[in-house]
Amino acid sequence: MDPRIREHASIVVDHSIDCEAGDEVVIDAHPEAEDLVVALVEAIADAGAHPLVIQERTGKRFRRAYLRNFDGEFEAPDHVKALYEAMDAYIAIKGSDNETQLADVDTGTQAAYERAYEPVKETRLQKTWNLTLFPAPANAQQAEMATEEYENFVWDAIVKDWDAVAEHQQPMADRLTEAEKVRIVSGETTDLTMSVAGNETLNDHGEANLPGGEVFTAPVVDSVEGEAYFDIPIYHQGREIGGAHLVFEDGEVVEHSAEKNEELLTDVLETDEGASYLGELGIGMNRDIDRFSRNILFDEKMGDTVHMAVGRAYPETVGEDNEQNESAVHVDMILDMSEDSYIELDGEVVQQNGTFWFEDGF
Amino acid sequence: MDPRIREHASIVVDHSIDCEAGDEVVIDAHPEAEDLVVALVEAIADAGAHPLVIQERTGKRFRRAYLRNFDGEFEAPDHVKALYEAMDAYIAIKGSDNETQLADVDTGTQAAYERAYEPVKETRLQKTWNLTLFPAPANAQQAEMATEEYENFVWDAIVKDWDAVAEHQQPMADRLTEAEKVRIVSGETTDLTMSVAGNETLNDHGEANLPGGEVFTAPVVDSVEGEAYFDIPIYHQGREIGGAHLVFEDGEVVEHSAEKNEELLTDVLETDEGASYLGELGIGMNRDIDRFSRNILFDEKMGDTVHMAVGRAYPETVGEDNEQNESAVHVDMILDMSEDSYIELDGEVVQQNGTFWFEDGF
Repeated sequence: MDPRIREHASIVVDHSIDCEAGDEVVIDAHPEAEDLVVALVEAIADAGAHPLVIQERTGKRFRRAYLRNFDGEFEAPDHVKALYEAMDAYIAIKGSDNETQLADVDTGTQAAYERAYEPVKETRLQKTWNLTLFPAPANAQQAEMATEEYENFVWDAIVKDWDAVAEHQQPMADRLTEAEKVRIVSGETTDLTMSVAGNETLNDHGEANLPGGEVFTAPVVDSVEGEAYFDIPIYHQGREIGGAHLVFEDGEVVEHSAEKNEELLTDVLETDEGASYLGELGIGMNRDIDRFSRNILFDEKMGDTVHMAVGRAYPETVGEDNEQNESAVHVDMILDMSEDSYIELDGEVVQQNGTFWFEDGF
Repeated sequence: MDPRIREHASIVVDHSIDCEAGDEVVIDAHPEAEDLVVALVEAIADAGAHPLVIQERTGKRFRRAYLRNFDGEFEAPDHVKALYEAMDAYIAIKGSDNETQLADVDTGTQAAYERAYEPVKETRLQKTWNLTLFPAPANAQQAEMATEEYENFVWDAIVKDWDAVAEHQQPMADRLTEAEKVRIVSGETTDLTMSVAGNETLNDHGEANLPGGEVFTAPVVDSVEGEAYFDIPIYHQGREIGGAHLVFEDGEVVEHSAEKNEELLTDVLETDEGASYLGELGIGMNRDIDRFSRNILFDEKMGDTVHMAVGRAYPETVGEDNEQNESAVHVDMILDMSEDSYIELDGEVVQQNGTFWFEDGF
């Protein structure tokens, strides 16, 4: 077994979910991730805790068989809910033998299933959880990398000292929490202002997401003004939206275009009312993620980028006096800040061409 | 997908567990059985029921990792118990990529784990359940067959009209239920008598076990007299006990020997008091199982055989006025009845050289 797999597992168990003796853990994984599951089970056993391995979110071939053959009203199954109610922690591993396994399942059926399944998901999200990835060949292919190249990419982004990452990111998280007005400028195509007054910025250092490596908050819903061009593609429902351009007035997207798959962007924005407002502003700070890999778990943490999500805001980022943007979608859009770009907080530049004020070369 | 896989799945779902709309089903399977799991999920969805796929009993590589790294008192985990309490039916699929995955796990550790895990197992056994097998290459190898040869062997034994099987077996089940005294004679080496008075004979037609194909009851505990030579090997804990010979007095094994691995037979018989008494008498009636394959799910149903298990009796076979033999073990031993053999019930021959009184050629 590649020694990085056991390092990866040890980070998940000892850092991300902070597993303790007696904890009852569910590992949700495709067989392609078997080595990582074995390493996780070892680490969970070392901690005196108890694992159960399932394929629920990760069993996409089974999901396909179910969705294509079930002919009735979907229900949230009690047995899965009972399992999630009883567990202490949940680890989901992305990675499979075919990332387009649901390609021929009717999207309306998928949406109906997701809606019915919501109570099970809610139960799961109330527990300590971690989402990570095993670099299987199909995932390397999706990222357009060689398998070994992708393994290096993934483990470089994951296997690191996350306490040191937390420390490095904290100044930016603190400053964004204190700030009222944010301005993001990149080249001639992006100049956006928004308020984050009263909202909380969180420091993602590899707990719920592994890799972590971002700080993120929620814009005040009606405060966003200006335009943004997202030069990094958006990978949504197995398709790429390329070169998206959004214009905001009073927080709402009033104009949009895309160089590739514009109709998919239109669909996203028209999902519901909240889908044309921003729910998240994030700043990617994981510089080991140095390129787009068609996987939002990695893409949104890419170093020297910012991302904004249209749709649902994370409740933990929204101050009690502020409105939480609600939507069925949360679609992240990323822009490169490494050249000809800056972030201003209350009139002061805090990042220039990807370099923060507290770093050398600012 | 081999069309027999979907036929197999349909038998499990529609016959064995008799799945109904709204049922919540757990499928416990190794990834080697993936095609059968997919077919089961299709059939479960067709029935309007809901599946969850897990690797609990079947995740032996994970079990190994857990048992070799856990250093404390084993506990029955509540999250698995909660899942089993909430489910309606449970399907376990034997079949893996290595049937000796626990070879380097201390047997004392395995036993301690099994003891602690007993409440979870009890919960599981209270639900409708089915145990079946997917013919993976490692299982073919264990049976010393080519993979395709083994697939034919397995599906010939499984894919059939189980209602017709039930009908064919019922006369023997009825007659054994009514009988008091059983005598089993084979060649010069086996002449055994026992009482089954007051005990119930069950007709196994593919419900809890697939393949099914036996009728079975419990001997009255202290009634077994005589000797038996088991010419078909016993496959126990990954090892073969060959040519076992047992001598009974007042139900107890008072002498024993084996041509191969006699010490393992001794260990079995010395497990506890009940281990040297019979807990089961079964008559194998599935003639598509025409050879030993180192898998008791198949071996005990082999046509033209009888088997006796030392150890625990199945409670459902024991009449209310009779004692149920208790033991931590239940080890089946099989003898070939196809030549120079007969079964007598209350002095009347009911099977001669494998042929029953109700069959042609008797």
